[in-house]
Formats: sequence, structure tokens, C-alpha cells
Amino acid sequence: MTTPDFLPVVTASVPAENVQTALREIAEIIGADRVIAGDGSGEFRDPYQPGSWDAFATTGVVQPDSAEHVQQIVRIACRHGIPIWAQGQGRNNGYGGAAPLVSGGITINFRRMNRVLSIDPQLGVALVEPGASFQDIYDAIEAAGADLMVAVPDIGWGSMGGNQQDNGLTYLPYGKDWRNICGLEVVTADGELLRTGMGAMENNKSWNLYKRNLGPSIETLFFQGNFGVVTKLGIWLMPKPEVITHVHIDVERDEDLIPLVDTLRRLRLDGTIDGVPCILNTLLIASTIAPRVNWYEPEEGIIPDEVIDEIAAKIGIGRWHLRFALYGDRVVNEHNLQKSITAFEAIPGATIRHTTTGPGEWGSLPDPSDRVYAGVPNLDWNTMAGWRGGDNGGHMSFAPVVPLTGQEVYGLQMWLKAEFERNGIDHTSDIIVVNERSACSVAGITFNIDDAEATEDAYRAIRELVTAAGRIGFGEYRAHLQFMDLAQEQYGWGDHAYRRFVEKIKDAVDPQGLLSPGRHGIWPAALRPQR
Amino acid sequence: MTTPDFLPVVTASVPAENVQTALREIAEIIGADRVIAGDGSGEFRDPYQPGSWDAFATTGVVQPDSAEHVQQIVRIACRHGIPIWAQGQGRNNGYGGAAPLVSGGITINFRRMNRVLSIDPQLGVALVEPGASFQDIYDAIEAAGADLMVAVPDIGWGSMGGNQQDNGLTYLPYGKDWRNICGLEVVTADGELLRTGMGAMENNKSWNLYKRNLGPSIETLFFQGNFGVVTKLGIWLMPKPEVITHVHIDVERDEDLIPLVDTLRRLRLDGTIDGVPCILNTLLIASTIAPRVNWYEPEEGIIPDEVIDEIAAKIGIGRWHLRFALYGDRVVNEHNLQKSITAFEAIPGATIRHTTTGPGEWGSLPDPSDRVYAGVPNLDWNTMAGWRGGDNGGHMSFAPVVPLTGQEVYGLQMWLKAEFERNGIDHTSDIIVVNERSACSVAGITFNIDDAEATEDAYRAIRELVTAAGRIGFGEYRAHLQFMDLAQEQYGWGDHAYRRFVEKIKDAVDPQGLLSPGRHGIWPAALRPQR
Repeated sequence: MTTPDFLPVVTASVPAENVQTALREIAEIIGADRVIAGDGSGEFRDPYQPGSWDAFATTGVVQPDSAEHVQQIVRIACRHGIPIWAQGQGRNNGYGGAAPLVSGGITINFRRMNRVLSIDPQLGVALVEPGASFQDIYDAIEAAGADLMVAVPDIGWGSMGGNQQDNGLTYLPYGKDWRNICGLEVVTADGELLRTGMGAMENNKSWNLYKRNLGPSIETLFFQGNFGVVTKLGIWLMPKPEVITHVHIDVERDEDLIPLVDTLRRLRLDGTIDGVPCILNTLLIASTIAPRVNWYEPEEGIIPDEVIDEIAAKIGIGRWHLRFALYGDRVVNEHNLQKSITAFEAIPGATIRHTTTGPGEWGSLPDPSDRVYAGVPNLDWNTMAGWRGGDNGGHMSFAPVVPLTGQEVYGLQMWLKAEFERNGIDHTSDIIVVNERSACSVAGITFNIDDAEATEDAYRAIRELVTAAGRIGFGEYRAHLQFMDLAQEQYGWGDHAYRRFVEKIKDAVDPQGLLSPGRHGIWPAALRPQR
Repeated sequence: MTTPDFLPVVTASVPAENVQTALREIAEIIGADRVIAGDGSGEFRDPYQPGSWDAFATTGVVQPDSAEHVQQIVRIACRHGIPIWAQGQGRNNGYGGAAPLVSGGITINFRRMNRVLSIDPQLGVALVEPGASFQDIYDAIEAAGADLMVAVPDIGWGSMGGNQQDNGLTYLPYGKDWRNICGLEVVTADGELLRTGMGAMENNKSWNLYKRNLGPSIETLFFQGNFGVVTKLGIWLMPKPEVITHVHIDVERDEDLIPLVDTLRRLRLDGTIDGVPCILNTLLIASTIAPRVNWYEPEEGIIPDEVIDEIAAKIGIGRWHLRFALYGDRVVNEHNLQKSITAFEAIPGATIRHTTTGPGEWGSLPDPSDRVYAGVPNLDWNTMAGWRGGDNGGHMSFAPVVPLTGQEVYGLQMWLKAEFERNGIDHTSDIIVVNERSACSVAGITFNIDDAEATEDAYRAIRELVTAAGRIGFGEYRAHLQFMDLAQEQYGWGDHAYRRFVEKIKDAVDPQGLLSPGRHGIWPAALRPQR
């Protein structure tokens, strides 16, 4: 094998026959057809890892049908000392997909636990299993005839549970600061069940309604964490507004990003704009439409600025494209729209488009991103992954958090552009404005996974970026398997006080260290790297 | 002494001379005038505990001036094995005030660390010390001329840090679900400093802007927790809106609470009403105006229903009084006001008052509660504590969380009223609507602290209520020292899976078990009760 030696390949120290024994024991409980090993598990690799590499390899994928199944799986794995990696649908593409960080263990996949257990139309809340995809939830809401919406991400095939547990970003107002999730059920490392929030009380009806509990609230420990396996999630659903107004704003020049961000921040802070706007550059939008070769023929080097301008003109956008939606009564939306137009029109050369539609029209909006902002999941933007390589395209994100000021956002973008260009990578950028004060600046690095060398170069480039960004105070919101450690390493304040504190928790609640070891840089004592 | 034997009096097992040695060592660092022991520490008792009782007694109160002071205090206390109880201003009245749960230890009081360290008018964020009161923060904002507001509670003398770390409720839009706090600095049990969120990275400018971090987010562990001593807090400040519209709605009969709550929930879910409305009953409002004796002469027994109606008529309110505020542009507020009026007018007999004012008028609004909703802290409602006993009045809250449906809220209120009446206690009620889906139903039990027997009866009544409510699935959002254990005991789902999980964390991050032991029912191994 030719796996690059910089990849942090950790293999479980458990004998292979123990894993096979455990998989047989699990099969007896959940059914042999729900245990996938050998070739069949290929679907659960990182889909963007070249075939010649063997990092992040599972020994077997198990698909439980109930929380009780999960408890038994955890108990069996712990008895045999086998690491477990849990996800949702396994669509964490760009961050490692379904693959585990530690090889040689067992993967729990929740495609079979994808039920929407209940929808309460009065309180706007649902209880779902961790494998329920955004599409599943959308379909269940529509089938129930509830006038509710679920906040969805760009691509709707993933599970809400998996997405949110990775701090995944969704776009509607409830996506802001991950307001969505309220109340978890979790299998802990001892195979017991725990409920967070008010669910810690028998018969308490506020489990999925109230955000805290008596005593310290532990819910966020299970987001980007490895302290338990989530088996149920309470999720909040927003009532459908009378209308949604989709707004698209283009600015001509890179530096117009400064007033664009500052105007947006003011309108967010004063409540004119809610939800999660995003600001995309020309190449990011181009990548959602067609592969690179359709826009620019030479494979080598980056796309020059003048070609970017040509592409922008072809698509009819600018250097930066802001999109957001207003949700509300028609008269309020109209006021907020006019206020937004007045504010953004002050940016020279800004162009503004907007459409206002009611619930009946949201499913057929022509722009897939408008559908996303209307809570209608779709897969259209998956085109992005094929920027290089088409059907064999892969991508990986570099996604630091940035304060929501024009200077900060622009400064970071120009720094990123220079870093990307130095590495021969097109700078695609999606600045996702997660609240009124900060954004996740997601830059997608794309590569042809059939070209192992180019893929390795892309991997290396991101690793360098993570470190370089950390030096200037920018940290990632989420990391690919290959650089979870490196990204966490940048959070070194107080001699890594945060990581030391969290790893004490890890050792206390998972003493064998078998639940998703190493996830986002948090290791159990047995596998903790020398640092 | 005649301390009632049901009170959970736990005394530190450390020899008294060690505590004195520690206090001397601390005095050398922070100054002898900042170490308060003996009689001087009387101010830091539970102000509502009869003088003849000696539960929850501190040995000495220390007032550090910096995070470095706190680190040294923690190190000294740990070297001598002395429990530490940390608060803010020490105004947690109704829940124990400044008093510690475990007697014989050292109290850290933050009245000296009350600085507003910075205000960023562009991003609407401040960094404050844990003793900064709501009034301090308000004053600092005004002095800086920033067009920003801080979300304040009923009574503005407490610290924002202390209040929020107890999940205290504040009323403006940022009070909803405790959105206020973003980024903590904490001294851990080993005397080291830790920063949560993006503050875990050196020079990361998003510390007080972004709600999560890479890896599991631990911030809420320090709310109602005992895993560290908070020394700095990032807080979000809302831009002043063009206008605030204060709305007061009265309904005549107890059962009108049902449509009142259902209407409110719908208007909150669809975004018409933001922030934290509250619904008060007649006696609660009466208690904010004058002591009980001014309304009803007989001291014994409860105030009869017909007298409640007379009181309501005198004040010009109904059986239930809803108040909320709209924040926004004049045109949007007007739309939302009319929509609210139309919706609430459908309740037979409902009366609606409203006023709309701009920033210049908020400081002089005649109704203190309107000032609170306008972010202007005041102390007027402290009158409540004197319902029985006037200047010697005390109160204690019983505060379960309830789903925001008319049937649930009404059912709980009628159950509470019956339980209160059975115990000879007037039913005062303040239903604080913390988000779109749930509320904290705060019932204040008032007593004359000069009457130790009556106070003991009140204490006993609440203890019974906690257990009885737990049996029917209602749990407290916050508890007085005397029944923290009992309130936590109600959260027994999965054989107390929550508490067992959290106590594992406690033992891991505070192995000596010296930080606020027993807070909200979470005990370190050394002091853990037999259960």
C-alpha cells in the first residue's frame, strides 16, 4: 500500500479474531444481514480516499435497529476491547465520510435507525433516531401535514443526528447557533442509557422543549465528542412563515467583501435578517454548476483572475455572492427587504435580486440553494465534489471560524487565496454566517481521487494551512479525520488546558477508551499520543 | 442552636486551624482587608435563614481582585483540603444568597472583580468579570455611549456571572435560552486557567463570538456546575431597537390562562413575539407593590379567592397578567402589536394595554417591570420578599419547568395552588417563558424570618412540593441550598444515569472534591451521600 506517511494511521491493538468473534456475537443479536464486513464495507470508507490507500479502515459495519441493540453492541465491543466509531447515515463527506479514525474496530451505522418517532405540531418538535436524514424528516413532516420546517444543509442525504453531532451547519433560522437540538438519549461506555436535559427525569414532558436541566448541562459534550453514542434526538421545527423572501446580492470586486460583511452584520444584529446567510465566491458557485474543465481547460495551475471574471459574467454573478432569506409575514418581510436593499445598495456596483414565495412554491424553486433556504432538502450541490475529476472528484474542507467584520473576513479570504494559489489550488469559498457575530469560512479543496499524487498534495496543503492558520489565531470548526489531531493541536491556550480538561472527562466516562477514540483530537489514555 | 434536622448540614472535615492558616495565606496575597471572617461574614449568610439556625455557614469570605488571585486561592485551599464556594455578588437570594452548601469552608466572593473589561460596539459583545452586576454592565454601556442593551433580571443588583451560572432568567431577547453568554475563562481545581470555546486558541478573536469549538463544547458544564471557578465571561449585547412596545394583557379568570398560554405560544413560535414574556398571577403582582398586610389583615390562612378578586380590581389587573415587549423598527412593532392584539382579543374579557417608546424614554418608564424589559436594571421588585414580615421578609422559590401549552401550564398552576393552600401558603406565581416551547413556573413562598417556626414550615412545604412534583414529572430549573439534593434526586431516569455520569466528571476534574461540593446535587466521591 502507498498510504502517505503523514496520515495518522492508528490501528486498534485488539487481535483480529476478537473482532470477528464480536461481529458474530453482534450478528446473533441484530441479524447477520446487518453486519457488513470485508468487501461489502467498502461503501463505508472515506469516499474521497484514493483506492490505493488503506488509512481509516473499519473491520465491520453494524446496523442496529434500536437503542437496545446499540447497548448490546457497546457491551460486546467493550468486553472484547474493540474501538467503536459511530455516525449517522455515514455521509460526512469531506471530513472522512463513514470511516473511523482508528482502524481495526467496529463502525456503528444508523441507516436502519432512521425513524421519525414523533412530531408534535403544536409545540413544533420532533423526536428522531440518529439515522433519520434531512430528507426523512422533511418527508415525515409533509406526510403528517404539519406546517413545520426542518433546517437543512446544502446536501440533504445525511442524517440530522450525524450532521449536528459534527456541528454541521444548516441554513434556516433554527440553524443559527445549532438551536435545533433539544434533548438527547445516549448509550454510555458502560452500555447504559442516559437522557440529557429534562429527560433525566422520568415522565418529564419538557425533555425536548427546555434547553437546560438541574445541574450542569452536558448535551454539547456529545457534539464533536466521544463520550457516548446518541440514539435519539429532540429537534425543533419552525412553523412555516407566510412567505419566504430569497435575496441574492452580488458585488463586483474582492474588496467589496468588506462593506458586504459589515452591512450584513448590522442587519443581523438589529434583527432584520435572521437565519444563516452565506457568502460564496465565484469559483464556489461555478463548482456547484459544472466541473472545472467546463470553465477552464488547462488542468495545471490555478484559474487566473481574469478567467474568474469571465466565469462570473457567464453565470451572472460577481466576485462575491451573498444569499439569505427572510421568513415572516408578508408585510414584515417587505419592510425588512426594503431595509436590506437600501443598506446593500450603498455598496457601489452591488446588484440585488429577490423573490418572495409562499409554502406551495418552495418545493419547485428552480435554484437548489433557494430550496435549501426554504427547508426543502436536495442533492444538487453534490456537483461541487466533481470540480476536479468529475465522478471521481473528491473534496476536503478547510473551515476556520472568523469574526463577522469586513476587515477580518476579507483579510482571511485574501490570506487563504494566497495560500491556495501558492499550492496550486483554486480558492473556492463559502462563508457560512452561523450567527450575528461570526462565520465559518469553508474553503473546499477538490481533487481527482484517481490521481493519488494530486490527492496527497491536497492533503498536505490542508495540513500546512491548519498550522499556518492556527499561528495567526484562526481555528477550525470541524476537521477531516486526517487532521483532527493537528486542528486540535492549534487550540493550545494555557498549555492545552481545554484538551487536558476534556481528556480527563474522556478517561472518566470511557475508561477503556473505546468510543470514537481520537475524534476531534480527544484521545483516551491508552491511545493518547506523545505530545 | 435550633437548626431544623431535615436541613442537609454537611461540614467540611478539615480542622478549623487549617482553614485559619489558609485564610492567613490568602490574606498575604490579596490583602487582609479582603478576607472577611467571624462577625463580618454575616452579610454572606443566607439572608432569609432565621438567625437561630446555623446551616450553610462559611468560615471566611475572600474577595480576589484578579484571575491570578483566584488561582492562588484555589491552590491554597486545595493544599489544605478546604472546600470553596464561589459566587458573584452573592445575591442569589431565594436560593441561599451567598451561603455555601458545605459549612466550614471558604467562600470566594467577586464584588471586587466587577469590571467590564471591554465593550465592542461593532460586534455587540463585552468581556466582564464574574462580579460585574447588571447595573455595572448597564452603566458601562451607557458611559461608553454604545447603543447596546444587556438582558436583565427582575432585580439588578446581582452579578450577571453569578446569575447566569445559576441559569438565572433575564427578559430581553438575548435572555431567551441563555443566549447571552459566549466564552468563559475558568480556574480549574488544579489552579490552572482554561478558556472555553474558541478561547482555547491563543489569539483567537472569536472567543466571545462563536458558540462552539473544535471538539466537545464544555461551556454549559460551568452553569449550575462545580467543575471550576469562572473568572471572565463574554456576554452578548443587543443593539437598541428603534422602539420597544410594552404589552400588558389581563385575563379575568384562572382558566383563561389556557387560551392565554396557547395564544402566546403561537405568537412566539411564528416569531411575532421574541424575548422572555412572563405571566404573573394577582398575588404575585400584589407582592411587588406592598406587603400582604396592606391587602389582607388576617395573618393566618391563605387569602381567599374573593379577596384576590378585590385585590385584582384595586390594582386594575386580572387573575393572570401577561407582559412582554416587542423590539424593533416602528413599522414592524406596529404590525406585530396589531397581530398580537387580534390574537389575544379573542380571549373573552381580555384587556390589553400597550405603550411604545424610544431609547430616550426607557430609563424613566414608570413601571419597574417595563424598565426591566427595556434593559434598565432596578431593585423595585425586591418588595416581593417582604410579603410576609416586611423588612424581615424572606422568600424561597419553587420553580419547575413546564411545557408551553395551555393545558399543561394551567394544570400545573391549579395543582400548585391546591398544594399551597393545603400548606396555608398564598399561591404567588410568575411563569417565565424562557423560550417558544417551555417556561419556568416560579412560585415564591414568603415567610417572616423572625418567625423561625413559620420559616421551618415554609421550608418543609417546599421539600414536600419538590418530591410531589417530581412524582408527576415536573422538575426544578434551580434549587435552594436546602433542597438541591432533593431536587436532583427527582431526576432519576435510568437509575440516575445523568447524576452518575456527571459525578464521574466531577471526580475526574476535581479529584479532591473541593469546588462547590454538592451544588445542585452533584457531590465528589469523598462527600457523596449514601443513596
